[in-house]
Amino acid sequence: MNKQEQGLTIAGKTYRSRLLVGSGKYRDLEQTREATEASGAEIITVAIRRVNIGQDPNAPSLLDVVPPTKYTILPNTAGCYNAEDAVYTLQLARELLNGHKLVKLEVLGNEKTLFPNMPETLKAAEILVKDGFDVMVYCSDDPVQAKMLEDIGCAAIMPLASLIGSGMGILNPWNLSLIIEQSSVPVIVDAGVGTASDAAIAMELGCDGILMNTAIAGAKDPIRMARAMKLAVEAGREAFLAGRIPRKFAASPSSPMAGRIA
Amino acid sequence: MNKQEQGLTIAGKTYRSRLLVGSGKYRDLEQTREATEASGAEIITVAIRRVNIGQDPNAPSLLDVVPPTKYTILPNTAGCYNAEDAVYTLQLARELLNGHKLVKLEVLGNEKTLFPNMPETLKAAEILVKDGFDVMVYCSDDPVQAKMLEDIGCAAIMPLASLIGSGMGILNPWNLSLIIEQSSVPVIVDAGVGTASDAAIAMELGCDGILMNTAIAGAKDPIRMARAMKLAVEAGREAFLAGRIPRKFAASPSSPMAGRIA
Amino acid sequence: MNKQEQGLTIAGKTYRSRLLVGSGKYRDLEQTREATEASGAEIITVAIRRVNIGQDPNAPSLLDVVPPTKYTILPNTAGCYNAEDAVYTLQLARELLNGHKLVKLEVLGNEKTLFPNMPETLKAAEILVKDGFDVMVYCSDDPVQAKMLEDIGCAAIMPLASLIGSGMGILNPWNLSLIIEQSSVPVIVDAGVGTASDAAIAMELGCDGILMNTAIAGAKDPIRMARAMKLAVEAGREAFLAGRIPRKFAASPSSPMAGRIA
Amino acid sequence: MNKQEQGLTIAGKTYRSRLLVGSGKYRDLEQTREATEASGAEIITVAIRRVNIGQDPNAPSLLDVVPPTKYTILPNTAGCYNAEDAVYTLQLARELLNGHKLVKLEVLGNEKTLFPNMPETLKAAEILVKDGFDVMVYCSDDPVQAKMLEDIGCAAIMPLASLIGSGMGILNPWNLSLIIEQSSVPVIVDAGVGTASDAAIAMELGCDGILMNTAIAGAKDPIRMARAMKLAVEAGREAFLAGRIPRKFAASPSSPMAGRIA
Repeated sequence: MNKQEQGLTIAGKTYRSRLLVGSGKYRDLEQTREATEASGAEIITVAIRRVNIGQDPNAPSLLDVVPPTKYTILPNTAGCYNAEDAVYTLQLARELLNGHKLVKLEVLGNEKTLFPNMPETLKAAEILVKDGFDVMVYCSDDPVQAKMLEDIGCAAIMPLASLIGSGMGILNPWNLSLIIEQSSVPVIVDAGVGTASDAAIAMELGCDGILMNTAIAGAKDPIRMARAMKLAVEAGREAFLAGRIPRKFAASPSSPMAGRIA
Repeated sequence: MNKQEQGLTIAGKTYRSRLLVGSGKYRDLEQTREATEASGAEIITVAIRRVNIGQDPNAPSLLDVVPPTKYTILPNTAGCYNAEDAVYTLQLARELLNGHKLVKLEVLGNEKTLFPNMPETLKAAEILVKDGFDVMVYCSDDPVQAKMLEDIGCAAIMPLASLIGSGMGILNPWNLSLIIEQSSVPVIVDAGVGTASDAAIAMELGCDGILMNTAIAGAKDPIRMARAMKLAVEAGREAFLAGRIPRKFAASPSSPMAGRIA
Repeated sequence: MNKQEQGLTIAGKTYRSRLLVGSGKYRDLEQTREATEASGAEIITVAIRRVNIGQDPNAPSLLDVVPPTKYTILPNTAGCYNAEDAVYTLQLARELLNGHKLVKLEVLGNEKTLFPNMPETLKAAEILVKDGFDVMVYCSDDPVQAKMLEDIGCAAIMPLASLIGSGMGILNPWNLSLIIEQSSVPVIVDAGVGTASDAAIAMELGCDGILMNTAIAGAKDPIRMARAMKLAVEAGREAFLAGRIPRKFAASPSSPMAGRIA
Repeated sequence: MNKQEQGLTIAGKTYRSRLLVGSGKYRDLEQTREATEASGAEIITVAIRRVNIGQDPNAPSLLDVVPPTKYTILPNTAGCYNAEDAVYTLQLARELLNGHKLVKLEVLGNEKTLFPNMPETLKAAEILVKDGFDVMVYCSDDPVQAKMLEDIGCAAIMPLASLIGSGMGILNPWNLSLIIEQSSVPVIVDAGVGTASDAAIAMELGCDGILMNTAIAGAKDPIRMARAMKLAVEAGREAFLAGRIPRKFAASPSSPMAGRIA
């Protein structure tokens, strides 16, 4: 397990914030900017196939509001359904971002559920790592395949907590625990978080970070939810490090019985 | 439901912090002081039958480290098993604290579980309210009896989330929701919180505040857990006010499909 | 805990079936008869204020399809909101049923939730027990008040699993366990069961029986659901007596590693 | 979804029982025989690498107590960690069982968790289907890879509910639901069931059957637990077909308010 107390180190760079955010689904670029700032995130992920970061030089670019000088831009392959498309998309991103190596690989297996296609994910991860990328990888919560991705050389393992955009929270904390226990690279929950307590739960399990988009962008007040998520990730991390009391069914007085005065 | 955005108002006084803490179970008074400070709490509860706040003028007093000039001291009746003892204990506290009216009533029904004795709680609440006290009241999560306590004139309803000291979290969020929905005085979860996410969950349900002791004092690092709880209460409150996305089982892309570029 | 292996004994009479059923909400009396038969229940409860068992001599009577010669009729006080009404209703029932002593007391506290009014329930139980009734009592899952009802002399404790008609299942198995552990009269889950697994869970916790109505009468196919519930109650009881394997997070081979052949 | 009302049809043969059992972990062959009989199972699975069904002609054979004339013997590859070993093991089984085609493939990925190795499972499934086997396949609860296994031509999809031998029940009913919804071959929960209610829950989700071993063999009274599981599988199936009431948080009276008499 990766217990980096001092911050989240991915591919050699250390970040103070353990909250990573997406850039989609906001009302406009101004709201994107404000929410990203409120979240305290230092890494912001961008769907290369959907968001303009320079592909169209005549349209407004996301980079105007989340500048690469301030944020680490994490290109992702949302919308790719096979290894080939995903690899091609990230090679395109590398060009657009002047040789940027840190990427998020996601190869989807189903248009309705957006569940990952693990065989194509493993294939793409292998190609990208050999091609010199630092690969953060969206995956199922299967601990055996998570280990394969780590062995391939991925920079971070990013299991889903529940389906993308579902807001259903951490459906299987047991599998997540197995992945956290076995991994020596950061484990970052990607997808499924719905509200602040979900983020806290993930961090309390020992995750190194959380990536989210819909939970913030889809909230009634996205700026406020961004702030809630920032606090929740810190709360969960602190609670993990503080060492919680054990759950026990037998009750005990909250004060020692000894030393009664009145 | 009590949706005071600007702070937690109890018996006419408004507090910025929605986290209330106990003073028992710490290693020593210095740790009590540090953890209380880290928690950001403004109200600290004291078991009058166990903790010295002046009953014994020759022993160290809790008030030396949590001075009434800085904190609102909330005397409680931990260890009382009938209405008579509870009423007597709070009358004693009133004298010790120079006419202080804000108190926490708890009448226990079982030495092993510390579950409340609701008939005696109702009886004591009635006497105390008539006697001029502002009564915050520990109770079961029974919405009908919670309403009776409010009708009697209690200043805050404090249902248990799970057994005192158990750290089992929010066992029945449904009952808690019924109480929150019907109450026009603050609802403060008292007992059962084990870690930061439990606190966030309670606040996301719409509670007005949380009181805890064991979860902080019993953690491996109480100061750090106090900080975690401060953050978690704020995170949960912000998430409640921000309006979370609905849970949905069907997945949706986290970015709009329209506007594809690559 | 009441571990009667040979059947469910209430007020001195032993029943083979541990499933008790209500008689409301069916399409017609014929469906009531069929579902009751399919459930294998021997005790059927009747809302005296709503169902004709002779109050109106000119209308069809429930007793025509569930004859007292074959079933134990259990009059209940559904619809009563105070002790006085409940006591009066059961005295009326006793007359209608020729001195029948076994009754189910339920005093409701809220028209929307149908949550019990525990103070009025305690009051009515006391009067009825003194008046010679064998009182089975619907109550909250508060272990302290459940013990008070047992001490008053009730014949069976009937905590809700969740709100009447909600189908939400066993919301707080912990409180239920405390009640089961402490009781020397039968504990029968009343209200909240939605489907077969809920019934199995209740029995696995060590309940002595389950009473339900909506889960059967409201199913798409009530006769089939009655059969499902019969099987589920038996399954849960057998599993309780068989002694389940412990839950453990570390996996173990389902066959011993020793003795490998191939 | 496969809604075969009349029984469970696998590879063209129909079984009345939807409970499949393992043959490991029993005290002795006599207990194996009794528990298998009590379970009502018609399919019994055998770990070819561990259990003698003729490999050693001088040792007692399992087939003496569970004769192939009465039961369908389902050879499995428990203990295999790659496709090659699994394929070889089942080819050996086919010889021992005179050309028997129905097999259960399981390729494990981790000795501690016994979680499946999905890439090797997919590879082995492809080879076995081409070689003429009817392949029932143990797999993770990943709906995308489950679909791949179906497309390869597997005869039944057997996702784990939780780790083998863990008794933790259905950890992720959502993934299971996705698999059930998309599959046109039977979906049989394999691994993780701990007690009767777990089996009922799986069947209520719409599974076509359940395979278990430890939950029965490891119970204090395996024969009684076998009976409990038989009843629970039937209860869950009946409840699924009967159509449960919806869960709803607002309560409703269990009898119509109209038609009050008293």
